[in-house]
This record gives sequence, structure tokens and C-alpha cells, in this order.
Amino acid sequence: MKIALLGCGNVGTEVVRLLDAQRSDLEARVGEPLELAGIAVRRPGKDRSDLPVDPSLFTADAIGLATRADVDIVVELVGGIEPARTWITSALELGKSVVTGNKALLAEDGASLYEAAAAANVDLYYEASVAAAIPLLRPLRESLHGDTVTRVMGIVNGTTNFILSRMTQTGAGFAEALEEAGDLGYAEADPTADIEGYDAAAKAAILAGLAFHTRVTASDVYREGITEVTAADVASAKRMDCVIKLLCIATRDADSVSVRVHPAMIPNDHPLAGVNGAYNAVFIEAEAAGQLMFYGAGAGGAPTASAVLGDLVAVARSRRGGARAVPQSSYAQLAVRPMGEVITSYHVNLDVDDEPGVLAEVASVFAAHRVSMRTVRQSGRGDDAVLVAVTHPATDAQLSATVAELAKLPTVRRVDSVMRVEGELGRWAETGAA
Amino acid sequence: MKIALLGCGNVGTEVVRLLDAQRSDLEARVGEPLELAGIAVRRPGKDRSDLPVDPSLFTADAIGLATRADVDIVVELVGGIEPARTWITSALELGKSVVTGNKALLAEDGASLYEAAAAANVDLYYEASVAAAIPLLRPLRESLHGDTVTRVMGIVNGTTNFILSRMTQTGAGFAEALEEAGDLGYAEADPTADIEGYDAAAKAAILAGLAFHTRVTASDVYREGITEVTAADVASAKRMDCVIKLLCIATRDADSVSVRVHPAMIPNDHPLAGVNGAYNAVFIEAEAAGQLMFYGAGAGGAPTASAVLGDLVAVARSRRGGARAVPQSSYAQLAVRPMGEVITSYHVNLDVDDEPGVLAEVASVFAAHRVSMRTVRQSGRGDDAVLVAVTHPATDAQLSATVAELAKLPTVRRVDSVMRVEGELGRWAETGAA
Repeated sequence: MKIALLGCGNVGTEVVRLLDAQRSDLEARVGEPLELAGIAVRRPGKDRSDLPVDPSLFTADAIGLATRADVDIVVELVGGIEPARTWITSALELGKSVVTGNKALLAEDGASLYEAAAAANVDLYYEASVAAAIPLLRPLRESLHGDTVTRVMGIVNGTTNFILSRMTQTGAGFAEALEEAGDLGYAEADPTADIEGYDAAAKAAILAGLAFHTRVTASDVYREGITEVTAADVASAKRMDCVIKLLCIATRDADSVSVRVHPAMIPNDHPLAGVNGAYNAVFIEAEAAGQLMFYGAGAGGAPTASAVLGDLVAVARSRRGGARAVPQSSYAQLAVRPMGEVITSYHVNLDVDDEPGVLAEVASVFAAHRVSMRTVRQSGRGDDAVLVAVTHPATDAQLSATVAELAKLPTVRRVDSVMRVEGELGRWAETGAA
Repeated sequence: MKIALLGCGNVGTEVVRLLDAQRSDLEARVGEPLELAGIAVRRPGKDRSDLPVDPSLFTADAIGLATRADVDIVVELVGGIEPARTWITSALELGKSVVTGNKALLAEDGASLYEAAAAANVDLYYEASVAAAIPLLRPLRESLHGDTVTRVMGIVNGTTNFILSRMTQTGAGFAEALEEAGDLGYAEADPTADIEGYDAAAKAAILAGLAFHTRVTASDVYREGITEVTAADVASAKRMDCVIKLLCIATRDADSVSVRVHPAMIPNDHPLAGVNGAYNAVFIEAEAAGQLMFYGAGAGGAPTASAVLGDLVAVARSRRGGARAVPQSSYAQLAVRPMGEVITSYHVNLDVDDEPGVLAEVASVFAAHRVSMRTVRQSGRGDDAVLVAVTHPATDAQLSATVAELAKLPTVRRVDSVMRVEGELGRWAETGAA
């Protein structure tokens, strides 16, 4: 079984190492050896003598390698939309199976790739695209195949989780925590994809598509990053016995799904609250299975390579057996619910005038939008007077209309911050503590 | 695709319900309808009108149903060794695929069943046999196929976890907590299989076999139940900032594995310490993937049925595609290390004479067996004088020899309790809090 590897960075290097170190195990598991046919890199001449591989395997001709007649499986680890899409599509059309970790491409244009794989009767697997080695896609695709998944909620971006963990632990502001993340290698030179939530949104689209057997693209995902999260927000969360996490939340009802990524307060006793640093964790809730949680390293060369190798063995086995592995299915064709219709809760911080009647005025605005208030707290005097309100669940449209009107009240000097509140599961804590 | 269901208790009933409720989804996922060909029960005449199924499907003739020409897949949910083994073997030999949740049978005689499945080129799947709906076997069998699993550690028996949780929460003794578990339906009328650790040992054998690609039977598993755990042990654990859990622990090194089930103290800040009641959680550690955790309901009709249906879809799909799903592999043929060679730590409670020199005497016994002590604490006066020692890791043989010699010391009135200490991971906590 001949493997073409496209890309030899952090993950590709570990894939090469594992293919060598596990050679005999892999052969036993697949039924025949897995052999590297070539490795496409930008600079084939670079010294890679530390890698256990014949230097003549390196080539700059990625498309040539991906379409070579003797190649059975293409492993794409370059990322980005193009030229990765062309390489993958060309390989699939020539009847090669593909393993990729390319979340951006799958979230933007997965459907056309799944179709190309189906048309050629070959496999396209991508466990590495979400949460590295944590087995999430295979459980969704196979283990829960006899069940109805109703909700997926998790932390799927390590960079933002590191930044928010540091802000919580040290009281640092966003800029300072981002700088620390960069220094420690947890944030890239251009961190936009992470901190603006694009990376998490791509993963959310992939998870929701698999969980709900429907098509979800990155553009279907409501997305807010963490750049607006302030040290004051983190402090507010602490006062509520909460922490702020960047969550991906996908839910389904009878005929629609909603998929969103945004920072939210979650209670300290929620299991996701304890997931710190670069770790990932995802809850999956299904009708019969109940609530399941998966936890592990969400990034890194070796953990991601472990996911790639798992897929590689599955794809090689199915190829050898002359059958396809379990493909992506999207028969459900569910509509995507607009964010305005999603049910959520808000935590609202207002700078207010220090005079009697303010609370009544604010409360009447909530009431006018039929939003029920859970708690309200007024504190500080004079210029420091603030009012903090936490709502019961309502539609996002009701809540944002409420906030817009609050901002116009003469007694409200400023809407200081608005943050969603999630994960009042209780159910986990209660049943878990039964 | 025709399904024969053997057994219609708690889980079987939910399987029937799910097959009906998810009819169209299952058809879309498999590619053709899944139809019940018959349901074998002890009393076919019993009123089951609440089940969405034609009453004429019920039969008392299990072997007749399992071997019927029109049956494609047999789902065995009766449990126990015989007649389940005969039914499953007969079905496999006739070319039918089998889905089962029968942990006792798989742990005792899995190898002959895997061979029968391989000989007939059909599938034998059993996700429901361990931790109900938590996807554990499929991740081990497939997701981590490109990696080397080095350790599996978890809580896999809900009854004992409920009992130990209650003892921790209320200070109750074992007998009292067992009675409460029985009243609430968490313990069976004859709880032996749970409280003596047989159920957990069977699951440990199944997990270890899959994780390490080798053959492990229940008789290979070192097993201690929780019947000897006292309220005093629980109180000792609390003083150490620990809780007592019944753990299943399987490890591998280059050429051997060890598999054991016993109560152990684990630190309160270990993630397994917070897994309470009837819940299950399992850590899997692999060379490249690092540490993964899986959590969810470990028992119950609906969660177990979810696992059965997941397997049913996988087996039906592979049957339709004319290929086998990923089978059990045992190519590694690793030896099972005797418990005496396993590295562990002990917490030892001694009733001692209240006189100078006792500690020195005790310490010299540890030293003579080359066991390093981590902490030692002497307290109480006169008849209440006790000495509590916690060791650094050593072989179980060294530790039990030490305890045997301590018992013979004239100044030691009684060895009050001996409990293993596990899960000083720290690694989870440290990296998780990075």
C-alpha cells in the first residue's frame, strides 16, 4: 500500500516517524506494509537527515506525487483551500483514497469532496481535522449511528482556550495573554484564524455535519471571536462563579440545526470549566446514549499524527478489502436556524446613572421584549454605578433587541459588555453525583 | 437486512424501540431497512403490547431463530456463558453476523468466537459489553490503530461506583451502601458479579485485548472486589485528600501486559475522582495521542441499546458491502505479567504499641524489602495508637512481603488495612492547567 504524503511540517514529520516506528504493527493491522511513495514539500533540498526516510522521496511536485499511478492513498497535511483542493480532488478522481486534516477546506467545500470520493468509490477520512487525537468523528460517524445526536458542545480551539485560561488565572487582559501565547508557541504569528473563531467555526461545521447527517459549511456557523473579551468580563464571570470559554455549540431539533461559536460564561462546576490550557473537550448528547464527554490534547504534532495514522489504517484496510469505509452522510438535509432564533441567556453589564428608578426602567425594557430576568445586581455609587443583569433563556433576537433598547435609555450611560451564559447543565452535575 | 433479537429485557426492549423510532434514519444510514425477524424470549406469551412490534415475532426457540435461513444478523442480549455461546457460535458458523453485549462470554472465551467469525468471514461486534454507550471499543479498535496504547485506566462498573460514592458522601459502611444501591435498582438481587469485581474484570479483559492487540481472558485479570472496603478506609482516604474507587488498570510494556481490578485510593484532583454514581469514565494513554478521557453513562437500557444499534449499523453496512468490519486482532501475543511484578504503591494502616522506637522498627522492615516510604504518620495514644504509611511505587510482591512481615512485628498489634494508591498522574492536572 503506497502512501503519498503532502506536507512535512509539524504533523507530517510525526506521521513519517510513526510510519517507521510502528512499521510491523501497521503491517499486522492492515494486512500489508504501508510504504511512503513520496513526500511533497516546498524545499526538497532542505536537510531532513533526522527523519527515518530515504531523502530521494522528497519532491516539490505535489500534484505529480498525488496523481502518480503507483500511489494508493494521499495524505494531505498542507492545509488551506488551494492548492490542497486541487490535489485532493485530482487524487480522488484517479481512484486514490485521501486522508486529510484540512478543516478549512472541509468546512468550506466538504460536500464536493465527499461527492468526488463517492463518485470514485474511494474513502475520504479526516479525524485529524477536529481535536487532534480525540476520537470524535469516528464515534459520531459510527458509534452513534443507531442514535439521534441532539447536541454537541465543546472547546475545540487550544489557542483561545490557552489565552482565556491565562486571563482567568492571572487577571491579564486579552493583548497580554495573546502575547504570552505567542511567546510559548500556542499562538501563530498571525493568530486571526484562532482568536476570531474561524478555526473553531470550521471544526463546528465539520462536527455538526457528521453529528446531524446534514450539510453544514463554515458560512452557516454564527461566529464571534475572543478579541473583545476584557479582563473586566473575566472578573464579572468570576463574581458569577463562572469562567469564560470559547464554545462551539451545535444543536438540532426536528427539522433544523443551529451551529455557533462564541465566548460564553459557564459555571465553574461545569466539566468544561476545568478544561484549561491547550486541551480540548467535547460533550455529545444523544437521545438514547445520554451525555458523553471526550477529552484530550487538541493539537500538537504527535496527537494529530495519531489521528492521521488511525485514518490511514482504516482507509488502507477498506481499500484492501475492496470496500469503502463509512462515508459522510448528509441525507437529513436540515435547515440552518438563524442565530436570532437560537435560545440562549445573556449577562449584561451596564454603566448607569446613580439615581432611584433606574432598575425599574431597565427591568421594564426586558419585560417589553418578554425576556425574563434571572438576577439583577446594582452596585457602586456616582460615576461607578453599574447594573448587572442575567436573563433566563430567550431567543437571541429578543435579547439583542433588549440590549439595543437599553443602550438608548437616558439613564444608561454605556452598555459595558454583553456575554452569553451557557452550560447550566446541572444535569451532568446532578446525574453524575447521583 | 433481517435481525434476530435474542433477549428482550431492559436493553432488548430499548433496541426494539430504537429500531422502530429510528426506522427511516437507520435505513438511510445502512442503505436498506433493518427488519426484526424474531425476538427470542423465555415467555413469548407475556403481554408486551407496549412494544411497537408484531406479537407474532416472539418465540421461545432462540436457537431456531438464531439459525433461521432468512436471518442476517443475530443480536444476543441474554448474557451468561451458555446457552449464549452455542447460539452465537451456531449463528456465526452459518454465516450470520453477531452483535452482543455479553462481557462474561467474551472475557472467558472471546478467542474462539473471534475465530469462528473470521472463519465464516462475518462480523462479531460488542461495543455494548463495556461502558454502555461510551464509545470505547471502536476508538481502541480503529481510531488508535496507528498508535501504541500503553495504558487504560478507568471506572467501568456502575454498581460499585455508586456504593463507593455513597460511602464517601455519607460515611456509610459497605453493607449499608450496598442495601441502598439495591433499593434504588443500582445493585442486583445477587450482587456478587459487581461487588467482587468479576464484572469489571471481564470488561478489563475485553479492553486490554483490544488496546494491546493481544489475548486476555478474565482469568488473566488480577481481581479484588470492594467487599472489604470499610468506612474507616474511606475516612483514611479522605485524610489523604483521596477517594476510593474500584479501578480497572491495564498497562503494556515491550513484551508483556498487566491487567488488574481492585479498589484504590486516587487523589481528589484526579479527574476520575469526580466520576460519581453509576457513571463510567476511562482514560486511554497512547504514545502519540497522549492521554484521552471518555465519560458517560456506563449502564442502563437506552445507553446500552445505543451501543447495540451503533454496532448493528456498522455490521449491516459491512455485510451489505460484502466486506468485514474491523475485527479483533491479537497478533501481538503478549505475555501477562503476574500481579507480583506490577509496580504500585500501598497505603498501610497499622495498630501499633504506643512506645518509642515503633516507627524505626516499621521503617526498617520497609527498608529490608527495599520499599521507599513516601509519608509516615503516627497518631493516637495508648490503645488507639496507629501508624499510617504510604509507600513510593514498588513491585506488588515487595509490598505484600513487607506487609506480611509488618504483621509479625511484636509492636504491631494489627494490620488494619492495606489499600493501593493510584493515579498520581499530576500529568493530567499539570498539562491540563498549562
